[in-house]
Amino acid sequence: MSSLFVDLNSDLGESWGAFSVGSDEQIIPLVTSVNVACGFHAGDYRVMHETVKRAKAAGVAVGAHPSLMDLHGFGRRPIPVTPAEVFDLVLYQLGALEAFVRAESVELHHVKPHGALYNMAAADEDIAQAVAEAVAAFDRRLILYALAGSELVRAGRSAGLRVAQEAFADRQYGPDGRLVDRRHPQAVIADPLEAAERVVKMVKQRRVTAVDGSDVALEVDTVCVHGDSPRALQLAAAIRDQLARNGIGLRPPFGG
Amino acid sequence: MSSLFVDLNSDLGESWGAFSVGSDEQIIPLVTSVNVACGFHAGDYRVMHETVKRAKAAGVAVGAHPSLMDLHGFGRRPIPVTPAEVFDLVLYQLGALEAFVRAESVELHHVKPHGALYNMAAADEDIAQAVAEAVAAFDRRLILYALAGSELVRAGRSAGLRVAQEAFADRQYGPDGRLVDRRHPQAVIADPLEAAERVVKMVKQRRVTAVDGSDVALEVDTVCVHGDSPRALQLAAAIRDQLARNGIGLRPPFGG
Amino acid sequence: MSSLFVDLNSDLGESWGAFSVGSDEQIIPLVTSVNVACGFHAGDYRVMHETVKRAKAAGVAVGAHPSLMDLHGFGRRPIPVTPAEVFDLVLYQLGALEAFVRAESVELHHVKPHGALYNMAAADEDIAQAVAEAVAAFDRRLILYALAGSELVRAGRSAGLRVAQEAFADRQYGPDGRLVDRRHPQAVIADPLEAAERVVKMVKQRRVTAVDGSDVALEVDTVCVHGDSPRALQLAAAIRDQLARNGIGLRPPFGG
Amino acid sequence: MSSLFVDLNSDLGESWGAFSVGSDEQIIPLVTSVNVACGFHAGDYRVMHETVKRAKAAGVAVGAHPSLMDLHGFGRRPIPVTPAEVFDLVLYQLGALEAFVRAESVELHHVKPHGALYNMAAADEDIAQAVAEAVAAFDRRLILYALAGSELVRAGRSAGLRVAQEAFADRQYGPDGRLVDRRHPQAVIADPLEAAERVVKMVKQRRVTAVDGSDVALEVDTVCVHGDSPRALQLAAAIRDQLARNGIGLRPPFGG
Repeated sequence: MSSLFVDLNSDLGESWGAFSVGSDEQIIPLVTSVNVACGFHAGDYRVMHETVKRAKAAGVAVGAHPSLMDLHGFGRRPIPVTPAEVFDLVLYQLGALEAFVRAESVELHHVKPHGALYNMAAADEDIAQAVAEAVAAFDRRLILYALAGSELVRAGRSAGLRVAQEAFADRQYGPDGRLVDRRHPQAVIADPLEAAERVVKMVKQRRVTAVDGSDVALEVDTVCVHGDSPRALQLAAAIRDQLARNGIGLRPPFGG
Repeated sequence: MSSLFVDLNSDLGESWGAFSVGSDEQIIPLVTSVNVACGFHAGDYRVMHETVKRAKAAGVAVGAHPSLMDLHGFGRRPIPVTPAEVFDLVLYQLGALEAFVRAESVELHHVKPHGALYNMAAADEDIAQAVAEAVAAFDRRLILYALAGSELVRAGRSAGLRVAQEAFADRQYGPDGRLVDRRHPQAVIADPLEAAERVVKMVKQRRVTAVDGSDVALEVDTVCVHGDSPRALQLAAAIRDQLARNGIGLRPPFGG
Repeated sequence: MSSLFVDLNSDLGESWGAFSVGSDEQIIPLVTSVNVACGFHAGDYRVMHETVKRAKAAGVAVGAHPSLMDLHGFGRRPIPVTPAEVFDLVLYQLGALEAFVRAESVELHHVKPHGALYNMAAADEDIAQAVAEAVAAFDRRLILYALAGSELVRAGRSAGLRVAQEAFADRQYGPDGRLVDRRHPQAVIADPLEAAERVVKMVKQRRVTAVDGSDVALEVDTVCVHGDSPRALQLAAAIRDQLARNGIGLRPPFGG
Repeated sequence: MSSLFVDLNSDLGESWGAFSVGSDEQIIPLVTSVNVACGFHAGDYRVMHETVKRAKAAGVAVGAHPSLMDLHGFGRRPIPVTPAEVFDLVLYQLGALEAFVRAESVELHHVKPHGALYNMAAADEDIAQAVAEAVAAFDRRLILYALAGSELVRAGRSAGLRVAQEAFADRQYGPDGRLVDRRHPQAVIADPLEAAERVVKMVKQRRVTAVDGSDVALEVDTVCVHGDSPRALQLAAAIRDQLARNGIGLRPPFGG
């Protein structure tokens, strides 16, 4: 039996109104936890309910994926917000998702901020604290998914939350353990097998090979996979395959 | 001590972004329960949190005021929606408000649909059932505020909820016990004292004088008062005064 | 050289923000005029500019596709609006599109209401008049695309506009010359060749075979084709093929 | 007869849906030009048409007041946008307003960016250029209102536009001729008479007394006045009074 485990998570339920996004049916069987959009960047109330039902049927852990209120920018733009505003917008979205989770008799499992909010909470101490405190105010049992090594990891622990550190299979890291900027020519790892082998190393050795060839410490509890393209699905399959070959089990963070 | 009681409720927290609506500070001291906008017709996350804090400070019962998703029409337009959609949009808004109520350590007390949703749920059996079932799925202890004698009263009871029947102090009723259409020349009672005396009669005799002079049965647990104009505040004060003179106590429905 | 002509039109530019809709590149080469979404049901300012550039490059006639303000319902829901409101919302969207047309040095050619507004303007005399008068107030040279035989045809002519009557290749008509409701089991014609042959008959004989087998008069200046599925593209190709075989030319209404 | 003139401008039409903003009726008689919100931060199609009618009746010059698409932030938040996006969003809003101006047989006179877009265009060369080029692409005869001495003044002139430099009566300027940040303790001049006298000096001497007591050159063609509070209306009246006492005439920029 496996003694090493990792979680694979994916963003789900990002359709809105008549706008259809993603391939939720195809990615769900490949992951152990899902992050459900809560209406602010995508995912209206119909989509949310449908997504919770789908996650329940698949038996994956259901988390909230709160965003800045930015439908037009899909939550990707760093709109200026105060920490107090972040506290309130995270609370609002957690509550909204909780209603569907409750109606479907499942449990809310985790929270992963979306897009610009994820990046802001990773880098800005005050925003990180606002996110963490909103989660703690809502339910201290929730697990906070945060970029490995980021401000949000620290803020979540300070707020008394369990924090799952997230890594990215197909992204390069710098010698400082931080993600290399997307505009860097080598930012993305194109080969699915190479990316999958990096995940195995992250889980087994808790280290990653940085873009300069150096070897860097990296704590990883969960790995983000996407379902928005054939390539993304291929990458997810490659990761699952390599994890299995290396005897690494799949389950939500902290035993789910 | 009073043996007769009635609730006075008011819609609150209807500002949104930079748009300021209502005189919440002035109406809160006059009522025993408030209906908090949940973001769909008004009341963004900042306003909701602020409104819950204000209601808590005043010691009034806090309820949700869910609406069709219609910011531009302030929730007043009967946009075609399916019962399944109503179920989901009510759930979403209940959850969103619950998050703030929980963060402020108060209890969610009731649900009163807003505007077009209120009217649709009063007249349409399927919409009424969808509202009632969403409330019941979220929390069976919640009290449902519904137009006296409407479909929503029946649907709420069928769903196992306690239902508070709502009456309007300054509106005329027909001999069938229904509200006279707003376009009717006598639809609105202008004199605050006359309106206040009608409330006393509703509570004491459970009857109202209809527009044709006949006397009609009307069950009333809660009376809606507004805070959006000096006249509205004057009416609320007149009602409180007449209730006090007649030994009728004020408290949320069912002993709240 | 052809002595008979017809226009093929298609709805374009229905992406919005990060939400991608339709296959604009594939449908443009198949049509002679396009209806550009103006931001109310889809088509934000970036998409509009891009769509106008694309239409200009393809040499197709550019028209406005104004909608009720209903992004969440994609303009398909009959939201209650007054004629005065319709006048204003059509004007707003015509102006917005005109700005891009002007910046790209092309001419605005026509207006075709979208979705629920199209249906309301087809059936309701006052809404039809409001649409027609808004178009006339903006620019009397614009051609109004309207459901063949509808109220909007009459209203457009009363307002002094040239009106292009629109027919649907794959939809059945009743013996009264009206579209059979979509819920009717035979409402949609599945076979592309059959649909294409119906278009030929419409253009040559100005008649259509109704669902009951009777032969009905139908004036047609433009035929709507869709580009949102492989089937739709196949239908458009079949129509073009049959028109060519029958010596019917393609050009925008009234000689473009 | 006056040989010196200045324009007084005000932001108008900032209601939206059921949300009512400002005192448009009270400010219009005090100004010579108005900036009409175009739907992105406020001012829906109904409000825009109404505002254009009101401006026409008052005989004031009508300008567009385009904003970032930010209803929730009232256009005040510096949301990250590219110059290409700014070009498109300005075009869209100019066109939308043009439709109402045309329907009411008046002429569009000027453009003044709103809120965050105003500030970004004042400080950022690329954003300034995008705004100026959008205005020029739409209509080269339009006058661009820009913060005195800002990047937008330069960009407007480079694009071949006439530029009206705008000053603020009740705001302090630094020795560099720039507005002192609002958070500075002396940023706002409270006394209406003092503010009015500063306007007279700006117009007569083309200079202003900076916050450090030094005397700074300042070109001013138009002065912004607000109508959102009794104080603001009092300030506007004081300015008009002082201008009249000093023989300075009121008219739109460039003889309007």
